[in-house]
Amino acid sequence: MAADGGEPGTVRPGGRTARVRAAVLRAAEDALIEKGFAGLDLADVARRAEAGKTTVYRRWGTVAGLVADLLQDMAERSVPRTETGSLRGDLAANARLVRETLADPRQGALFKALIAAAAGEERTAAALHRFYGTRIAEWAPVVERAVERGEAPAGTDAAEVIRAVSAPLYYRFLVGGGPLDEELATRAAEAAAVAARAGVYAPADTP
Amino acid sequence: MAADGGEPGTVRPGGRTARVRAAVLRAAEDALIEKGFAGLDLADVARRAEAGKTTVYRRWGTVAGLVADLLQDMAERSVPRTETGSLRGDLAANARLVRETLADPRQGALFKALIAAAAGEERTAAALHRFYGTRIAEWAPVVERAVERGEAPAGTDAAEVIRAVSAPLYYRFLVGGGPLDEELATRAAEAAAVAARAGVYAPADTP
Repeated sequence: MAADGGEPGTVRPGGRTARVRAAVLRAAEDALIEKGFAGLDLADVARRAEAGKTTVYRRWGTVAGLVADLLQDMAERSVPRTETGSLRGDLAANARLVRETLADPRQGALFKALIAAAAGEERTAAALHRFYGTRIAEWAPVVERAVERGEAPAGTDAAEVIRAVSAPLYYRFLVGGGPLDEELATRAAEAAAVAARAGVYAPADTP
Repeated sequence: MAADGGEPGTVRPGGRTARVRAAVLRAAEDALIEKGFAGLDLADVARRAEAGKTTVYRRWGTVAGLVADLLQDMAERSVPRTETGSLRGDLAANARLVRETLADPRQGALFKALIAAAAGEERTAAALHRFYGTRIAEWAPVVERAVERGEAPAGTDAAEVIRAVSAPLYYRFLVGGGPLDEELATRAAEAAAVAARAGVYAPADTP
């Protein structure tokens, strides 16, 4: 779970292998932000990271392998959920976090490059879906707590509520265009909270 | 508005120029579906369309110019809105249409290629935003009618409601992964209808 923890059980955290991995992944991020997935090249990443080219080829093999490891690392470093005591407050905190990430010039460019790469490459798509799976699972308990407090009906699909908060932000970011402003984040959270409360994310036959 | 109407006012609909445009745009679609934006090449498109290479270079100039014209043509050919008499029914019809488009192997691959291209290329992003602007404007009146019928408060942002219907479908398509099933479309429409009715898309100070 550490920022540069390497492969659990195989590498001493903070050791040389972990340091090389951290440097290579940061270099891969830089290259993706500057040139996109199509411009990503293992030799260039090794040069930027001041790592041995042989090491990089041996450890990551391909550009897709490197990107999959970057997404794994991003999942490990992702920000833990906030619990405010109300579904509305928790979803608003999540929406703010998503908005800040996508609106940040570096992070936004990185996510755009990764999502574009996933659109054309199966292995990257699978790694991207795992990344979002981890992120959604981190936040889903805020909906489970809300169900326990009676703020949403039993059987509510917690993961779908969390995805519903992110969806309008990603839609504007990738598809519709326009500013990733706070109003968008606030509305996304409120819409998901209202719909969850109304039972939209619960099976129709739940009492 | 015709499927192959060429440039309004300059070209006789159904004339030779319009036929060449239609053939070139279909060839561009095929190439995007097979190879993605990075594999798009004007000479290859001319060959596929059995059109003169010089004509294609003179008329479209660049790959980005060709893609912008394809998006313009897609906007002109997009399916008109359905009016069912209720906001819920209209949004469900829209969600079904979006789902069918993205779940269709050819259309889905085309949209994925176009959205990935827009992530790395400003001119394509602008053309994509215009395409979605047209599509959203076509459907926004169903929300305006709903406001007139009292199904949502005055001041409701009609375009945002329509975007809210599409957002969960695009999120799963591009980001989260998973099946683009009918349940997802139904929930997207219901969530948007419930949130619109609750005033989430209206200014807080609207009476």
